[in-house]
Amino acid sequence: MSASAVDVVAQLRSALGERVDTSPAHLDDARADKSGHAADGVPLAIVHAASIADVQETLRIAHATATPVVTRGAGTGLAGGANAGAGEIVLSVRGMDRILEVRPDDLLAVVEPGILNADLNRALAEHGLWWAPDPASREISTVGGNIATGAGGLLCAKYGVVRDAVLGVDLVLADGRLLRLGHRSVKGVTGLDLTSLVIGSEGTLGVVVGATLRLRRLVPGGTRTLTASFADVRAAAEGAAAVTASGVQPAIMELMDAACLAAVHALLDLPAPPAGATQLTVQTDGPAAEEEAAAIAVVLAEAGGDVRLAADDAEADLLWRVRRSMHPAMETLGTTLIEDVSVPRSALPAMFDEIARIEREFDLTIPTVCHAGDGNLHPNFVFTGDEVPDVVWRAADELFRAALRLGGTLTGEHGVGVLKRRWLADELGDDQWRLQRDITRVFDPTGILNPGKVFAP
Amino acid sequence: MSASAVDVVAQLRSALGERVDTSPAHLDDARADKSGHAADGVPLAIVHAASIADVQETLRIAHATATPVVTRGAGTGLAGGANAGAGEIVLSVRGMDRILEVRPDDLLAVVEPGILNADLNRALAEHGLWWAPDPASREISTVGGNIATGAGGLLCAKYGVVRDAVLGVDLVLADGRLLRLGHRSVKGVTGLDLTSLVIGSEGTLGVVVGATLRLRRLVPGGTRTLTASFADVRAAAEGAAAVTASGVQPAIMELMDAACLAAVHALLDLPAPPAGATQLTVQTDGPAAEEEAAAIAVVLAEAGGDVRLAADDAEADLLWRVRRSMHPAMETLGTTLIEDVSVPRSALPAMFDEIARIEREFDLTIPTVCHAGDGNLHPNFVFTGDEVPDVVWRAADELFRAALRLGGTLTGEHGVGVLKRRWLADELGDDQWRLQRDITRVFDPTGILNPGKVFAP
Repeated sequence: MSASAVDVVAQLRSALGERVDTSPAHLDDARADKSGHAADGVPLAIVHAASIADVQETLRIAHATATPVVTRGAGTGLAGGANAGAGEIVLSVRGMDRILEVRPDDLLAVVEPGILNADLNRALAEHGLWWAPDPASREISTVGGNIATGAGGLLCAKYGVVRDAVLGVDLVLADGRLLRLGHRSVKGVTGLDLTSLVIGSEGTLGVVVGATLRLRRLVPGGTRTLTASFADVRAAAEGAAAVTASGVQPAIMELMDAACLAAVHALLDLPAPPAGATQLTVQTDGPAAEEEAAAIAVVLAEAGGDVRLAADDAEADLLWRVRRSMHPAMETLGTTLIEDVSVPRSALPAMFDEIARIEREFDLTIPTVCHAGDGNLHPNFVFTGDEVPDVVWRAADELFRAALRLGGTLTGEHGVGVLKRRWLADELGDDQWRLQRDITRVFDPTGILNPGKVFAP
Repeated sequence: MSASAVDVVAQLRSALGERVDTSPAHLDDARADKSGHAADGVPLAIVHAASIADVQETLRIAHATATPVVTRGAGTGLAGGANAGAGEIVLSVRGMDRILEVRPDDLLAVVEPGILNADLNRALAEHGLWWAPDPASREISTVGGNIATGAGGLLCAKYGVVRDAVLGVDLVLADGRLLRLGHRSVKGVTGLDLTSLVIGSEGTLGVVVGATLRLRRLVPGGTRTLTASFADVRAAAEGAAAVTASGVQPAIMELMDAACLAAVHALLDLPAPPAGATQLTVQTDGPAAEEEAAAIAVVLAEAGGDVRLAADDAEADLLWRVRRSMHPAMETLGTTLIEDVSVPRSALPAMFDEIARIEREFDLTIPTVCHAGDGNLHPNFVFTGDEVPDVVWRAADELFRAALRLGGTLTGEHGVGVLKRRWLADELGDDQWRLQRDITRVFDPTGILNPGKVFAP
């Protein structure tokens, strides 16, 4: 540790006392997230902020000493966006997890960033309310992390993403100043929409220390679940597109390709599915759940699917258990790089053709799960060891280019972090890339906030 | 006209020929919008752009000659945001009005900015689709203008505002470069959300030359309409809050206070309403329109309202005619400054108390119509002559401060323009005000885009 690094830690300790953590195990944890990627080197210290004042004090010291700061919640990211390395301060807001206000009459809540998505929703349920964003990580990921990545989830086609569900954020700037962005009213167009700019900015603009969330009332009535098996993935993708085109809006519509399905069935000791078989799992909700499930069953049967409507909630839970076992099943196969391309819904069949082509060209199997209701695919690259092999990156490169050609995007809901930064300019174009980076400089002129992430050349 | 102004017009004519318009009547029209406010002086010329290339050429000349540019659609703004004055080029995109693409399978359309909102929706209806933002001006305002102001409308509480209904925009920067912002997929978090930043930026960041719009399917089934009369405005506001709190979501819920109602009844030769009587008009839609209207009727009756359910569509049209006649009725009273504060829905009764206080303190009548479903109020200051009297500005100042105290905002859907710029820092705070202005400088370093609007000190 250099002399100046020692001095930074000493300043942090002097100002923040026992909130400063230099335990080697904790510092090592902060190097990685759920992507498997880890930063080089070991960070200086972790500040466990308990208040806005703690965050401001940390940033004042970081700003004065030109020390990089990586803001971190629960560390469940999938793009390396909150991984901290040599010379960096880890600013953890995980401990700032209070619900400050719930207003059923205004359909809003004010929360601190460290609360877990699922904990928030359990508390809101007592008021008959929910916050709609439902990333698969919701039991372990924070609302602040959901905001930083612009998270999505399974229910997005019907109920929206994080960007649709935040009215305002409180943001501490790189120099420690606090800004209150957004509003508490349904409508508000005073000045530029900095709230939306902060959502998905992955720690590059400031530290989110509070959020005013737009809530929904719990959907009345039960849910209905059905599955449809198809002979191959293209047929399933066409079935999903037919559902979207029919105008009936499922709450959830998930696709698991043959490799996913086989791995999950093996993990759960279920009978092996037929070779090539791909499954759609669909949930409807609300007062018309029954009629909508029936209508979707007809569309999927006409599209060639073998449709099974769950008789009751217990059977539905079993069907969803298959989908929820996807990540554990991948872990049985090796180390996984989870990709996150998104395409217009009508392009889903073509995107699966591209994945099949990439599998052939690179001699890889790419098990793919897909939020088919909104066109967001998670192709999984499975390999052995800790290091992503070069062939995987070359295949991923082809995958990203294919998604862009089809009018899609590099990342639907995981963010850019470090793992996709080298493709960012391919999607944005050089002019927009520079403009975006220059905007981060307005918030953070000396570049101490999450350097090397998103916009690193 | 100065020598350099002559030179700018000559350059425009040389590059754009007959698209350059210096007709004195047209130049005079471009000085004002529907707010009644007009810019000082007369602009240099109007460029009637027919293509992206025309916009780029205009901006290259403006940039090279440091000439200010005011982008303009149909000129229906209510904050003076597109008014052009001495020394300025008016860049009209009204003629760029094509629908380039409609994709029912992806629920999106790609349009040019000059198309009128209602013309777009008539074309989309043939595909069973609609674009939800429905400003009261929709028959006369452009989609580009709706985007520039971040427009709202009557249906927002149920169907969202412009910000919820745009996937991407094509933007020409101050120096003529073209950027493609956003995406065509439902999800997408690649880099910063510049699309949302442009929405509501009132011509300060660039010129919107195309937009990818998020569409909805036409709502099946008919609509039901009911009115509820209350003895005073506070009772009506409490009735509206009770509807919101009940969880039944009206498509539209409008409040007209006693002064509005009296003026409209006089205009339409209807019997005068009882003194003080305030009216809520509510529309439900979708498959459950009937049951929802009945449920809302019960809530409003319990809140003390005298409820009348329209027997058929003809009667409903009559009831809505009263609401739609609001602006013509105000015009019979004098010149009108339409304000646009928005508050959390639960604060509606308190905001009406504040309006009553301001009426007493300044000895004014402030007829107010309110989108009660989303908490957006339009208090009307009526006066004689072209110039807003000082007492009106002092009363408006009180109005804005009251809205901010109640957790609300200066402008829910009309924008800042020139008429609210002096209050912008009161809402944003000085730090955020400077940050926002500095962001505009990243897009437009020399400050030629709509100078004097929004961020003028």
